[in-house]
Amino acid sequence: MASDIRMQSLAKPVTVAEYLFTRLHQIGIRSVHGLPGDFNLVALDYVPKCGLNWVGSVNELNAAYAADGYARAKGISAIVTTFGVGELSALNGIAGAYSEHVPVVHIVGCPSTISQRNGMLLHHTLGNGDFNVFANMSAQISCEVAKLMKPAEIADQIDHTLRECWVQSRPVYLWLPTDMVEKKVEGQRLDTPIDLSEPKNDPEREDYVVDVVLKYLHAAKNPVVLVDACAVRHRCLVEVRDLIKKTGLPVFVTPMGKGGVNETTSTYGGVYAGSGSSPAVKARVEGADLILSIGSLKSDFNTAGFSYRLSQLNTIDFHHDHCVVRYSEYPGVAMKGVLRKVIERVDLSKLSLGKPMNGVVNEVTKNRDDSSTITQAWFWPRIGEYLKQGDLVVTETGTSNFGIWETKFPPEVTGITQVFWGSIGWSVGAAQGAALGARDMCKDCRTILFVGDGSFQLTAQEVSTILRHGLRMTIFLIYNEGYTIERHIHGMDAEYNDIKKWNYADFPTVCGATEKESKSFIVKTKDELEKLLKDKSFNEAKGLQFVELWMPKEDAPRALKITAEISAKNNARTD
Amino acid sequence: MASDIRMQSLAKPVTVAEYLFTRLHQIGIRSVHGLPGDFNLVALDYVPKCGLNWVGSVNELNAAYAADGYARAKGISAIVTTFGVGELSALNGIAGAYSEHVPVVHIVGCPSTISQRNGMLLHHTLGNGDFNVFANMSAQISCEVAKLMKPAEIADQIDHTLRECWVQSRPVYLWLPTDMVEKKVEGQRLDTPIDLSEPKNDPEREDYVVDVVLKYLHAAKNPVVLVDACAVRHRCLVEVRDLIKKTGLPVFVTPMGKGGVNETTSTYGGVYAGSGSSPAVKARVEGADLILSIGSLKSDFNTAGFSYRLSQLNTIDFHHDHCVVRYSEYPGVAMKGVLRKVIERVDLSKLSLGKPMNGVVNEVTKNRDDSSTITQAWFWPRIGEYLKQGDLVVTETGTSNFGIWETKFPPEVTGITQVFWGSIGWSVGAAQGAALGARDMCKDCRTILFVGDGSFQLTAQEVSTILRHGLRMTIFLIYNEGYTIERHIHGMDAEYNDIKKWNYADFPTVCGATEKESKSFIVKTKDELEKLLKDKSFNEAKGLQFVELWMPKEDAPRALKITAEISAKNNARTD
Repeated sequence: MASDIRMQSLAKPVTVAEYLFTRLHQIGIRSVHGLPGDFNLVALDYVPKCGLNWVGSVNELNAAYAADGYARAKGISAIVTTFGVGELSALNGIAGAYSEHVPVVHIVGCPSTISQRNGMLLHHTLGNGDFNVFANMSAQISCEVAKLMKPAEIADQIDHTLRECWVQSRPVYLWLPTDMVEKKVEGQRLDTPIDLSEPKNDPEREDYVVDVVLKYLHAAKNPVVLVDACAVRHRCLVEVRDLIKKTGLPVFVTPMGKGGVNETTSTYGGVYAGSGSSPAVKARVEGADLILSIGSLKSDFNTAGFSYRLSQLNTIDFHHDHCVVRYSEYPGVAMKGVLRKVIERVDLSKLSLGKPMNGVVNEVTKNRDDSSTITQAWFWPRIGEYLKQGDLVVTETGTSNFGIWETKFPPEVTGITQVFWGSIGWSVGAAQGAALGARDMCKDCRTILFVGDGSFQLTAQEVSTILRHGLRMTIFLIYNEGYTIERHIHGMDAEYNDIKKWNYADFPTVCGATEKESKSFIVKTKDELEKLLKDKSFNEAKGLQFVELWMPKEDAPRALKITAEISAKNNARTD
Repeated sequence: MASDIRMQSLAKPVTVAEYLFTRLHQIGIRSVHGLPGDFNLVALDYVPKCGLNWVGSVNELNAAYAADGYARAKGISAIVTTFGVGELSALNGIAGAYSEHVPVVHIVGCPSTISQRNGMLLHHTLGNGDFNVFANMSAQISCEVAKLMKPAEIADQIDHTLRECWVQSRPVYLWLPTDMVEKKVEGQRLDTPIDLSEPKNDPEREDYVVDVVLKYLHAAKNPVVLVDACAVRHRCLVEVRDLIKKTGLPVFVTPMGKGGVNETTSTYGGVYAGSGSSPAVKARVEGADLILSIGSLKSDFNTAGFSYRLSQLNTIDFHHDHCVVRYSEYPGVAMKGVLRKVIERVDLSKLSLGKPMNGVVNEVTKNRDDSSTITQAWFWPRIGEYLKQGDLVVTETGTSNFGIWETKFPPEVTGITQVFWGSIGWSVGAAQGAALGARDMCKDCRTILFVGDGSFQLTAQEVSTILRHGLRMTIFLIYNEGYTIERHIHGMDAEYNDIKKWNYADFPTVCGATEKESKSFIVKTKDELEKLLKDKSFNEAKGLQFVELWMPKEDAPRALKITAEISAKNNARTD
């Protein structure tokens, strides 16, 4: 009776599922990752009804990685799993998105509110009548958890949660009981988009910080800009671009900031990561008397083992939720507004630019030795010459993540890595999601994935999803017989760093690829690689291209070796 | 200085890692599942040193599933993962072990106590300085969590935690910081094995319960025994066997109890699962005036949607930690001691056996139709004729889990399923672990896995581990184009229940199998299957055999259809 009355008061009743998926569409999601399970099936009927594409992932961890990749490419993403079994399989992927500030909407189909109330001994439970335990686990890695239990509150909950996901740029968790899926909520709300605008800084506080920043910037003799993870993740790249363009300041990126700056800009200096940097970059950044550090995330792998040699007295930190000038902290003053005003108000006549940078080149010749073997040192600069404008480049934790520092990107290349969370296997899912995200943005770009054989084995079946959606993907599988990054940390010849040798090049075929859909290549020498990289059809990169690329087992990029050594020491330290 | 003093006071110093892995060996573990990660590498050096075999799993979820299967076959198991990324990937597998009472030791290599104390921004963290968040998540699905932070306490912690794992038959979590791995503890303790004996009941309370049980048993006209999950999981099968042997009582199993009883025993009546039972079984069990219910776990899928028609007034429940006679509860009185005394004290002259059961047969002919198509109804009894003594049978959630009810097992067949937790993909990992566990017990038995194509895709790469260890495995992959169990719950033709078609039979080859190591078969008709099941070499089952078995997309075992229908209704219920 009560529900009838409520129904009558709705001007335009729509089901909860329709409301939710329509909102996802409105905030820019076009494809939804996930797997069916009996607690989400009815909800999934609404995915196509709301104009969304169902990805049909192969497992939940891959789906979560793919949702992460999709969000990095397209801005935000969604994944639907089922209670217990499905959601827990996705946790590592969601935790990675939390750790790296990626907005992913995790929707979990769960038992009906009635089953929960009655404590029924349902499948996918722990048998203790506690239906909240999995949501409690996810709460640790979500910036907002909403349990959609009462129809009258659901529309508000959805709108609020999706806004938090976007604004905080982190995962949220939406818990959808089976008996709520088709309950009616007010559809008229859908005529007004969710407010996704960034919270504005208090103007007086913002002006104060801007003044302080400008004071130090105008006084500096030798300032540089350093672009890091959260500049990308918190959508400040336009501000970064405008700042560099207007000021002509030398600009560097960290490993997690790579791709955030046009690397063909004359003032672009390369990747700074402390001791992992090239000597020229290290000298230039550490010699600066002011570092405008934008969106920094100074983790061990992002700083080559905490090897920065920068003084906080020479640093201004711009963060998504606060700023720090030397040791003065400004909580609640977000970088976006501050940077915009710095750009507007900087007095170019007062600006010293120090020694100009000479730009960056791909050092192919310098790193080429006489052997036919493909070395890490030669490979990564060589890839820089193969890449082209608009490419989407995904690199796996391991040799690829460090190697890519030596690759100069053409303009408008998007770089996607997971340096901080560093979950091996992530990149295969992430590449799928990123490629799909790009296609959903109507970008007909190449997605190029670099992944080691050890990592590939964890999530190999994502190749199936890549094929299912006919994505334009080139995979360079580095065949180097195991976990090379671990070898460099400890156990160079240990059995636990070995893997079983697969016939990797046949993997697309086993996933059902036809000759038209996929081409595989086995490349063992520099000359073979040269030939392939110059091949016209290969460069066009239609469908899936799978390159099994032989590299020596113990070879690793320079920066990886340095970081691994510092990691090993840190792990062993006893006092 | 303090640590030197402690060192000197140790009679036989051994490292923490040596202590831990030696203990694992002592309690019966011979192979350790898991993946390397920089926070566990040094610990892994001690695996072979302590006489343990390193499995070298392909990913953590598969490793957790495999550890679950290993424990079901061998009694207990261990998995080593790395902090954050590794452990979270394993969570769903560990949760399944918790839910289904499987003792798995989860060892997590984590950052050093120094890094933790300093709140370092390490890879694999959430960036908030909280190193406890993942352990807190695991605490929800572990019966004991031990953080090995102080050398003086570690040996005690390890012994206590391993005992809890065994006695409670549930996962435990051991957190091993890098700087504790090689700290010294007292090795002399290792001369005394960990006490794994079950806690004894208070004799007076136990006798009281035995008297009550015997009173009802002697008075009953028509009693039956019903063997369920926890009889298997809490190691009461010897008591069950002795009870049946001595009394001659008719005995039935639930889906989760299947394999717990010798099915060639003349008094064995079949699988009872309420409306999912055969009519004869349903009539016999529901017509009994006393049910001795041993280790019950009355979940929806184990009872065909809560469709038992049994009165508690006719039921005695024996549980691992309590008993219930009609409505009288006896907390803390464990079934093991009670059953043993019931066996000793039962007065056979007072026992009424009711109508005798006629045993169970594999109803192949009755279920054979004229078509060449392999139907679920015909297949499962037919498999009963193919199985032989000592086989280890693993069935996946989905059609296999329900179909196996129609298969009569030869003696000493171990049945392994995950009916309650029901995570799809589990069986591929579990089969690997179970086969390895059997081999580690020097059993040269066949392991036979039944898995649907949809489920297989989630964890397919576990085939690689099966090959790596040369396990004796026959896989029947049911090729029926998607998630058939979900189709029967909701969305028979929905896109979300479809999967990409793979060339499944080629999967072992892509994982590097040679012709000698693996044979594949594609079987599309009854006659082809008959021929294969009668083939001598196929029956010998050396190495890996992979059978791609075509069955109709919408076909499902009878019991699955009943259960799915009830599930759908329960999900949709709104009041």
